[in-house]
Amino acid sequence: MGWKENRYLRLLVVMVVATMQACVTQSKSTMEKHYRWQINYQFWSPDCVERMVIAINGQFPGPTVRARVGETIVVEVENLMPTEGVVIHWHGIHQIGTPWADGTAYITQCAINPGETYVYKFLAEKPGTYFYHGHHGMQRTAGLYGSLIVESGEDEAEPFEYDGELSIIISDWWHKSVYEQMTGLSSIPFRWVGEPQSLLIQGRGRYNCSRRDCKNPQCAPHVLSVEAGKTYRLRIASVASLSSLNFLIQGHLMTIVEADGNYVEPIQVQKLDIYSGETYSVLLTADQDPSRNYWAALNVRGRPPKTPTGLAILNYLPNPSTSVPPSVPLPSPSWNDFAYSKDFSRNIVARRGQHSYQDNSVPLKTDRSIFLLNTQNLVEGYIKWAINNVSQALPSTPYLASLKYRLNDVSRPAPENYQGIKEYDITKPPPNPNATIGTVMYNFVLNSTVDLILQNANTLIPGNSEIHPWHMHGHSFWILGYGDGLFDADKDPLSYNLRNPPLRNTVTLFPFGWTAIRLKADNPGVWAFHCHLEAHLQMGMGIVFSEGIEHVGSLPRSAMGCGSTRKWLP
Amino acid sequence: MGWKENRYLRLLVVMVVATMQACVTQSKSTMEKHYRWQINYQFWSPDCVERMVIAINGQFPGPTVRARVGETIVVEVENLMPTEGVVIHWHGIHQIGTPWADGTAYITQCAINPGETYVYKFLAEKPGTYFYHGHHGMQRTAGLYGSLIVESGEDEAEPFEYDGELSIIISDWWHKSVYEQMTGLSSIPFRWVGEPQSLLIQGRGRYNCSRRDCKNPQCAPHVLSVEAGKTYRLRIASVASLSSLNFLIQGHLMTIVEADGNYVEPIQVQKLDIYSGETYSVLLTADQDPSRNYWAALNVRGRPPKTPTGLAILNYLPNPSTSVPPSVPLPSPSWNDFAYSKDFSRNIVARRGQHSYQDNSVPLKTDRSIFLLNTQNLVEGYIKWAINNVSQALPSTPYLASLKYRLNDVSRPAPENYQGIKEYDITKPPPNPNATIGTVMYNFVLNSTVDLILQNANTLIPGNSEIHPWHMHGHSFWILGYGDGLFDADKDPLSYNLRNPPLRNTVTLFPFGWTAIRLKADNPGVWAFHCHLEAHLQMGMGIVFSEGIEHVGSLPRSAMGCGSTRKWLP
Repeated sequence: MGWKENRYLRLLVVMVVATMQACVTQSKSTMEKHYRWQINYQFWSPDCVERMVIAINGQFPGPTVRARVGETIVVEVENLMPTEGVVIHWHGIHQIGTPWADGTAYITQCAINPGETYVYKFLAEKPGTYFYHGHHGMQRTAGLYGSLIVESGEDEAEPFEYDGELSIIISDWWHKSVYEQMTGLSSIPFRWVGEPQSLLIQGRGRYNCSRRDCKNPQCAPHVLSVEAGKTYRLRIASVASLSSLNFLIQGHLMTIVEADGNYVEPIQVQKLDIYSGETYSVLLTADQDPSRNYWAALNVRGRPPKTPTGLAILNYLPNPSTSVPPSVPLPSPSWNDFAYSKDFSRNIVARRGQHSYQDNSVPLKTDRSIFLLNTQNLVEGYIKWAINNVSQALPSTPYLASLKYRLNDVSRPAPENYQGIKEYDITKPPPNPNATIGTVMYNFVLNSTVDLILQNANTLIPGNSEIHPWHMHGHSFWILGYGDGLFDADKDPLSYNLRNPPLRNTVTLFPFGWTAIRLKADNPGVWAFHCHLEAHLQMGMGIVFSEGIEHVGSLPRSAMGCGSTRKWLP
Repeated sequence: MGWKENRYLRLLVVMVVATMQACVTQSKSTMEKHYRWQINYQFWSPDCVERMVIAINGQFPGPTVRARVGETIVVEVENLMPTEGVVIHWHGIHQIGTPWADGTAYITQCAINPGETYVYKFLAEKPGTYFYHGHHGMQRTAGLYGSLIVESGEDEAEPFEYDGELSIIISDWWHKSVYEQMTGLSSIPFRWVGEPQSLLIQGRGRYNCSRRDCKNPQCAPHVLSVEAGKTYRLRIASVASLSSLNFLIQGHLMTIVEADGNYVEPIQVQKLDIYSGETYSVLLTADQDPSRNYWAALNVRGRPPKTPTGLAILNYLPNPSTSVPPSVPLPSPSWNDFAYSKDFSRNIVARRGQHSYQDNSVPLKTDRSIFLLNTQNLVEGYIKWAINNVSQALPSTPYLASLKYRLNDVSRPAPENYQGIKEYDITKPPPNPNATIGTVMYNFVLNSTVDLILQNANTLIPGNSEIHPWHMHGHSFWILGYGDGLFDADKDPLSYNLRNPPLRNTVTLFPFGWTAIRLKADNPGVWAFHCHLEAHLQMGMGIVFSEGIEHVGSLPRSAMGCGSTRKWLP
């Protein structure tokens, strides 16, 4: 083809591209939700004691992101912290086609350096209750989080009705800085920060106000205002760093209708167990005596609680929001009533006719099963968590860039199963506590079905095993079952729930037990699956898996620049 | 020239390069001083109160770097901090030919990300007393520093004699973290951390030990052991964050012989004024009663002192080092005796026959004079420091890469002089306190002579003006003079000392006064010149200048990857 023809071809390409761009620009205003954020430290008094938080645009918690299904969410994140990198993870969003927007440092992108801006752009593909948070070091614990709500499409009815909507994000809070906490985790001897000082509802708690003057409006209890007789959809997201929580509203029943962005069979509860990384929508009818207000109460479960109840106010309008409820709320179930906890989790099942995942029912067979033994170990004397004896360390080059551009060998396969599991006594501390540390990865065949069996075990302390809420990026998965003791690969799969398994992005692994999940590896990218307790993740309790890297588009330059991605520099 | 000749030419080049590389490899073992550092937070008790420090290989202060003139120092710095970048500045080293090794974040390199290693490689070109420290955020204040000593060549006699060598690095210390300090600096209202809790000698101080049990060996007083009758070269470096200091040794005189890596006319003092960024060598003869030990004492000058004396022990061997000196040291001069301070500074002059800089005497004429008015200002309500009304902000792309690869317009010229200086009343707060903030730069003609006249002024508080010790990267400069009040461009240059001006890399700007210096712009690169008080620098009190960028070699890739240097990524 000669120069002349070539020129015409180029002209054609230019015209087509220009037309496409024009279309994008035209539809931009209606189809995009645009946010500009500046992230920096700020003094704040979440529980009436002043400390520092990582604030967004001067707010804690950060501003709520809200979009309708089908809209594109665009968040320009500018890092104003003086020396720290930052990323934002959009918890529960699958990031289909945009794995570089998942916001996990050293997995999907380089951290955003001080002074830089990274533009997160992704589709709101599924209605539901989500949240966002920092995913670098322990910046989530430092307060970098907020709510993310995706509304159903205009012509798409939800399978339940309500008159109004309320939303809270709940968490735990320490007075020690995350720098001290992280330094303690990586010290010999290990130093544990201990239980949280306060529980926060929408960023507000109260520490020792009986002894102190707590007039700071930043720690005034959060108010949920309702009108008598009306029904509300209350969205609840737990971004807790450590605590398994139980939420209740004095005198009111709650009907669970959504979990992690998936509809569930309606179930009425007085008290809601919620683990870090989980979200729920509950329907709440204001059907009690309207002449007074009621406490919403948050308590610790699963660990010996040393933290006072977190409180918010359910305010029946037109009562003043400051009117203190006249009685104390009921207690939550005992912290160590694990039978209650397990029952609660097992009772969450897919909504009839709605247990689909992208219009596909749970695959009845799996292509691959991976067994993941969760242990507490020592690595060169440091206390770590390990999966199949490997404690996760993050590489200095993000996995996604490494794989896409074949920069490093980060595809070193992770151990598929724990060797000698049949002889492993999960009721005792590990006989040889030493584990290895490294950047390993599982590779899943695109569109294959994969089962993951999480197996809990005794920690380094005799008689102790801990709760681990495992959260998956880029996917929802079906919860096939929970069991006690060591998983039996012959018998236990027979008890899997294949009838109405709930789709979730977070699942609980109970002490001394196992949890089995199934996922469809249908989202090209690199994805984290990890314990959502931030200290546990910091201590290596996670894995990384990839699928269909060859289908991943070009990464934005701003996702790279660290580690070996510098190879193209002059 | 045809393909064949071209091939021969290339072959020749390859052979020459290979031969050169072989030579370098051969001489490597004898000519390089190699260090490998891992940087991380660690719990430490510098003054018997436990806090976090940024430690190097688990040590605070960091390990001493020591080399002989002509040797190459190689330091591999691995950043193990979880979320923070880091750089190391080699204070007093000129970095001739290696401007990317100067270690100033966003001026000469991108910060080293968590998990990454940067290799600093530079020539020990001039004997003297130096130090190193973090140059990103306030990491220096967080404890990231240590000594750097360059010994004279084997065949190069020092112009003074001594029997042994001692070395200390001195500083101030707060119990509030640098995160809180930095957040306070950028808050409205401004929050000031206040005076330091302790003064540290070689990283050791004692806070309130009369009320507390201070048995931690980390805070045991530093011991300088001597033998009676012998003479020692005591090297002293001040890495103080805020404090101007005065150092003395009970009963002993000190003879100053070196300042900032330059020989000075010997002068005997009882008490040594030393500002942040300065170093001195003093000769100390152990000529007192050898049956006891003596206090070395450190006090604050220049600000109303609220910090107790810092103490170390001069230990006459074989007395036990723990033997407490029987009397208290003399006090330092009164904090506000500025006449004493100015006399002290003026008395430091170049050593006779040694007032050369790279074998060149002070140029008697300048090619360019720049007047730098130092003011405290407001920028959008935030308190800042400004130079000629511009408060320094750092770009997200390092200046050096920006200029070398023409990435951004960071060459926006900085204001040469303060407009309307003749009408400016330096004895009063600024009539219009508002300044601008930005990334500006001065460009100096290579090998030209430049005078900089620092002019102090009243801060935002009536009747207040502060001390600013200004430090220059990549150069030493001659101190031409100090004066009180507003600099008179007609008269004051007549009083310049052109006979024996001392060469320094740090100079004091006294309250309500001016200081004039002269430099030779003979070092291709981009260089910082700034107030060495770390909070003041953080608040914008610095300038950047460049010279001979066209002579700068290729930057290491590891110095880039942030900001616009990502333009080459796929």
